[in-house]
Amino acid sequence: MEHVRNKALGAKASSAKMACLGIEEKNVVLRSIANALRENAAYILAENAKDLKAGEQKGTSKAMLDRLALSEARIEGMAQGLESVAQLDDPVGEVENTIRRPNGLMIGKKRVPLGVIGIIYEARPNVTSDAMGLCIKTGNAVVLRGGSDAINSNMAVVKVAEKAAYAAGLPQGAIQLIDDTSREAATYLMGLNGIIDVLIPRGGAGLIQSVVKNATIPVIETGVGNCHVYVDEFADLEMGTEIIYNAKTSRPSVCNAAESLLVHEAVAAEFLPMMAAKLSDVELRGCGKTRAIINANEATDEDYYTEYHDYILSVKVVGSLDEAIDHINKYGTKHSDAIVTKHYDNAEAFLERVDASAVYVNASTRFTDGDEFGFGAEIGISTQKLHARGPMGLREMTTYKYIIRGSGQVR
Amino acid sequence: MEHVRNKALGAKASSAKMACLGIEEKNVVLRSIANALRENAAYILAENAKDLKAGEQKGTSKAMLDRLALSEARIEGMAQGLESVAQLDDPVGEVENTIRRPNGLMIGKKRVPLGVIGIIYEARPNVTSDAMGLCIKTGNAVVLRGGSDAINSNMAVVKVAEKAAYAAGLPQGAIQLIDDTSREAATYLMGLNGIIDVLIPRGGAGLIQSVVKNATIPVIETGVGNCHVYVDEFADLEMGTEIIYNAKTSRPSVCNAAESLLVHEAVAAEFLPMMAAKLSDVELRGCGKTRAIINANEATDEDYYTEYHDYILSVKVVGSLDEAIDHINKYGTKHSDAIVTKHYDNAEAFLERVDASAVYVNASTRFTDGDEFGFGAEIGISTQKLHARGPMGLREMTTYKYIIRGSGQVR
Repeated sequence: MEHVRNKALGAKASSAKMACLGIEEKNVVLRSIANALRENAAYILAENAKDLKAGEQKGTSKAMLDRLALSEARIEGMAQGLESVAQLDDPVGEVENTIRRPNGLMIGKKRVPLGVIGIIYEARPNVTSDAMGLCIKTGNAVVLRGGSDAINSNMAVVKVAEKAAYAAGLPQGAIQLIDDTSREAATYLMGLNGIIDVLIPRGGAGLIQSVVKNATIPVIETGVGNCHVYVDEFADLEMGTEIIYNAKTSRPSVCNAAESLLVHEAVAAEFLPMMAAKLSDVELRGCGKTRAIINANEATDEDYYTEYHDYILSVKVVGSLDEAIDHINKYGTKHSDAIVTKHYDNAEAFLERVDASAVYVNASTRFTDGDEFGFGAEIGISTQKLHARGPMGLREMTTYKYIIRGSGQVR
Repeated sequence: MEHVRNKALGAKASSAKMACLGIEEKNVVLRSIANALRENAAYILAENAKDLKAGEQKGTSKAMLDRLALSEARIEGMAQGLESVAQLDDPVGEVENTIRRPNGLMIGKKRVPLGVIGIIYEARPNVTSDAMGLCIKTGNAVVLRGGSDAINSNMAVVKVAEKAAYAAGLPQGAIQLIDDTSREAATYLMGLNGIIDVLIPRGGAGLIQSVVKNATIPVIETGVGNCHVYVDEFADLEMGTEIIYNAKTSRPSVCNAAESLLVHEAVAAEFLPMMAAKLSDVELRGCGKTRAIINANEATDEDYYTEYHDYILSVKVVGSLDEAIDHINKYGTKHSDAIVTKHYDNAEAFLERVDASAVYVNASTRFTDGDEFGFGAEIGISTQKLHARGPMGLREMTTYKYIIRGSGQVR
């Protein structure tokens, strides 16, 4: 595994210089990569075609092939993504909260890059350029490890990007792609403490759990969302219908889509038929009380734990706000949960007591997203509690160090 | 390992209630525990005597027995520690940076407890009450796992504390002590993802590395400090002497003590003899250039990596500021490093380029400490980059969630 280690060491060697880059130096690099991707689109598409052919030969599903496929338009999208990251503010270098201690020491918190970020991801080749761009913007060196399905595409994107980036002044070694897609290489990478500072897995629940279990480097868990909408006794039922319709159906494959609906028993008889009519394309799986009111399949306990990523919704009638909150804290994944209510105390109690990265009153869970939160971009949505929760923008890809100015103080 | 799991589950079950406690409710609990420790000092001392006797029988070192030993004064110290934590501000519940998005959504960041904190530590029984107090103050449930050497003392402290705390209104289950001190129990505890939110090891490098390697729960690494003082070409040499003397000798056993001295070659001939005279009780281990100027043993490469925790100092003459910074970034542990200089550019370059939790100009590394930074207390000093760096006070024992107030927004 010397080849994996050497690439990680190459990233680490660049990280001191990366940390000192100015915003304009980083933006020039991002724009150069964007142009290079456009200029080399034919080459990238030819390499992508190899991945698609290999995928077809081994019987990869059509949905997966679609995620893998690049096109002129998708490459243009990657380029524009890099250009829009170039337009964002750079959090690196800010000094927050400088305090003066009684002994005269001035203690400030300076925002600095994390160092070397490892990204372990699956099929989509656009993650290669997105993640690279966000790391460069925040002064982090990046070690990319994509899946075998997209290896030719990823190698092509990185080859084009590296050449442009280093010519534009990026410190040598700051972009690394692990081209060994074996499981052993990934596991080895996850143990490089002292070289890689943080790992961010991007992909399905299986990938993320594998990284959490195997990594000794700190990991930021992302993206598993068993999100709830709770329609309270005091809800505007029209609003509730619109919110669950949006949260479930506007894009069922994403992590901020709702998977479960809770309804207070006092409004269930009126609300559930409204909801069922609006969500006519959705398979409903309900509790006994639900099925006494509307047509629905029977929900098992397992259903309430499930992130369907599909046009399926679990439904449960609850007797109280407390029961709703307890249910969410038990079955949820700490991603995004919403209450629909007109009742002030219930809204406040829900905000206070639901343990999730994003807790909503009278809005769709679909807003948990870096763009929607105004961050401009995101590297993922954290569902753990350390370091960052919810959408992780540029700021969440940095850390801080204390800088202390003295005049000879001793203790 | 059902007994370990059940205790962790007990802590988790209390955590929703813990998160909603008000500051006064928490302070009443802390003061009640403090009083109970005082009132039950005789019982705690009797249990501590069992640990001391067992330690003597198995030939535990005198230094270790001293760390293990409680006394009326030490118990009073534990009680006063809890009372001083009661006087600190409570960060939980603050809402920072509420923004209004174009669609009218109000998005705020609310500070909340981490949830369940696991503390794995070694001999000193006062960690039991310190860690418990900081967790309670920040609304976190705590799972304590101390070493076998102090098991009777820890059980006594927790027994007294639990009784007082629950009588004073602490949610049942919020304090848990794992009384199984086997290695298997510790390893099992480190794998309780979804129940324990974060592990903080407190102890020597061996303990910390074991937790980093074995835990699947997020870990905050603490307390390994190979700290440097660099005396620049443009240093006030008297100040340099005072700073290295303080950093090395005021308390060599702690993590913010200096272990290594770097000196610019232009001032080495003048500075090294001044330093050696002042640090006459310290064993010096130097490079060839050092040994050409003063008496010192020969330093190996290993010496420059070593945290001595003793009256030993490695010394190296460097040719430039760059060499000093590169040396620190290679051999250091990202804890605390200082430059002594009167040169503005050199000071700024050192602050910018040294990668450590705390970087100093003209002050001793010994200030890296929660009290010295004005936090009032600390749970440890983080040497990793995720979540928190440097001294971790109450704020660093919390996280945030986004709370979003809408009026029916869908996407």
